[in-house]
Amino acid sequence: MFDADIVTSLAKGVAEGDRRALARAITLVESGRADHRDQAQALLARLGTGRQALRVGLSGTPGVGKSTFIEALGLFLTGQGLRVAVLAVDPSSARSGGSILGDKTRMEHLSRDPLAFIRPSPAQSQLGGVARRTREAVALCEAAGFDVVLIETVGVGQSETMVADMSDVFLLLLAPAGGDELQGVKRGIMEIADIVLVNKADGSLKAQATRTCADYAGALRLLRKRPQDPEGYPRAMTLSAIEGAGLPEAWAAVQSLIGWRRDRGLFEATRADQARRWFGDELRAEMMALLTRDPELRARLERLEGDVAAGRMTPAAAARQALAPLEPGSDQT
Amino acid sequence: MFDADIVTSLAKGVAEGDRRALARAITLVESGRADHRDQAQALLARLGTGRQALRVGLSGTPGVGKSTFIEALGLFLTGQGLRVAVLAVDPSSARSGGSILGDKTRMEHLSRDPLAFIRPSPAQSQLGGVARRTREAVALCEAAGFDVVLIETVGVGQSETMVADMSDVFLLLLAPAGGDELQGVKRGIMEIADIVLVNKADGSLKAQATRTCADYAGALRLLRKRPQDPEGYPRAMTLSAIEGAGLPEAWAAVQSLIGWRRDRGLFEATRADQARRWFGDELRAEMMALLTRDPELRARLERLEGDVAAGRMTPAAAARQALAPLEPGSDQT
Repeated sequence: MFDADIVTSLAKGVAEGDRRALARAITLVESGRADHRDQAQALLARLGTGRQALRVGLSGTPGVGKSTFIEALGLFLTGQGLRVAVLAVDPSSARSGGSILGDKTRMEHLSRDPLAFIRPSPAQSQLGGVARRTREAVALCEAAGFDVVLIETVGVGQSETMVADMSDVFLLLLAPAGGDELQGVKRGIMEIADIVLVNKADGSLKAQATRTCADYAGALRLLRKRPQDPEGYPRAMTLSAIEGAGLPEAWAAVQSLIGWRRDRGLFEATRADQARRWFGDELRAEMMALLTRDPELRARLERLEGDVAAGRMTPAAAARQALAPLEPGSDQT
Repeated sequence: MFDADIVTSLAKGVAEGDRRALARAITLVESGRADHRDQAQALLARLGTGRQALRVGLSGTPGVGKSTFIEALGLFLTGQGLRVAVLAVDPSSARSGGSILGDKTRMEHLSRDPLAFIRPSPAQSQLGGVARRTREAVALCEAAGFDVVLIETVGVGQSETMVADMSDVFLLLLAPAGGDELQGVKRGIMEIADIVLVNKADGSLKAQATRTCADYAGALRLLRKRPQDPEGYPRAMTLSAIEGAGLPEAWAAVQSLIGWRRDRGLFEATRADQARRWFGDELRAEMMALLTRDPELRARLERLEGDVAAGRMTPAAAARQALAPLEPGSDQT
């Protein structure tokens, strides 16, 4: 059942930036239970959208040193007094049952930093649910007063597109590679990335990293220029997460891109578009909830689903019949 | 406005296997116009689900010789007197504006085969719409009495998952490659593929194709066995689309897999699951249509969307308000 006290205390704790309250609030939005869902919505509505952080999306396949990069970037930012939240998104964890190595052990130093908050990816989740929960977790981190929210994803299916759709800037972390492997980079991802970062530009890989970076820079130049980008973006840069080299330059590139977009109102316009799409997703989810909440509608739905499964009815015809009671002016039967 | 005569004549033509009628019917289901939508639904309902074809999903990135393979397989099947329909699915055509080379020129001989029907991918389409239209196009091809419906996709985003979800068997066509590039194969796709076909096993590439096939066979063995698969599946095979070598073996592998599944009722069970998911998609689409059809609901929706875009309201709260009039027992205002 709905617990108003929990909502009140969580709202207070989150607003005060209490990390334990934030963690509990995120657990609440991650829950599939109907009463938790109600509390989560009440909490989010209570906290509002006043505080906002810079939302940084990050993708990189396993092995590119993503954790090392996040730890290095995170510490670089907290070193400037910025509060940094890291949210991990991994739809594949639904299948694999969560990351083998906990995110906190992956980012040992950052996780001990009082200015940082690290939230591992919830296991057992579908992509749709992941999008909703992650957006809400981002909103909670913003309400908690974090300056930067880093949304990390492994490049599975549409997860990159999903994360890009809730980020102000999207970083793609890559490892030094042979030219052939350029084609290995998923089609479309290049269109999403604002900045491609070639990691491991250190030791024996340094030269190869530089070559790889040049390859990607060339590939990026082939893309038609995006109206929301200044000259030279999307761009490719090298860095060494282990040595920290290139990190300030990478962050400066993020800052200048964001600044350029803010000056032209593109930053806010993009956020408005993202909010509209989020609204659309919520609508679809809520409509499905509405159909399954009411016993009569639910029974009708199950009967029609049976007809469809048995091939007695086309899905579209069944869908129209299922929704007939909702038609404005219908007698609700 | 709704034209019953068109529906009647198209239904007759499609049922008689008239390819021009089929082409027009597919154009109808591809249309976004509301009245076309109604006619398409009426047509599909009229045709029913009596006739069914073997639905074969196929994916392969550009350059693996997909068109050559489809032409070879298609001619191999029509050579046995089977009627073959080829539907192309390319969500990226939304961005790129359709395939550079028309599908019919890609498959010159097959397109002239009276037993074959080739339908190019519609341009300017989102994935969601593509799923709906493709499922309906498949249903139309089945109603037209085709024995095999080949659903082809380039491996963009979720298109493979989407096509696999409307196929009885899913083939993945690959080119000979170095072991490193194994990792280039999109994560998850291996879980979708029933049969991995390494093409270009001819001339100078033959040896490499055999090695690549062995690599994939090894990778497939690492996957946990799927309950719907007999021993040895998913499997990897080599073939040469140009020389036609390996084609009968590949088709035999498809047949034995399908036969095994039919014997155990897995074939029908999978189709029932697919139909249920299709029903769910139709429901979501219809609900959105319902919300935007009614002027009052639409106005309410637009006002709330504005609030969300301006950050005055959380998407979830706005979604609930937008749907309040649909709540059973509400007074519809």
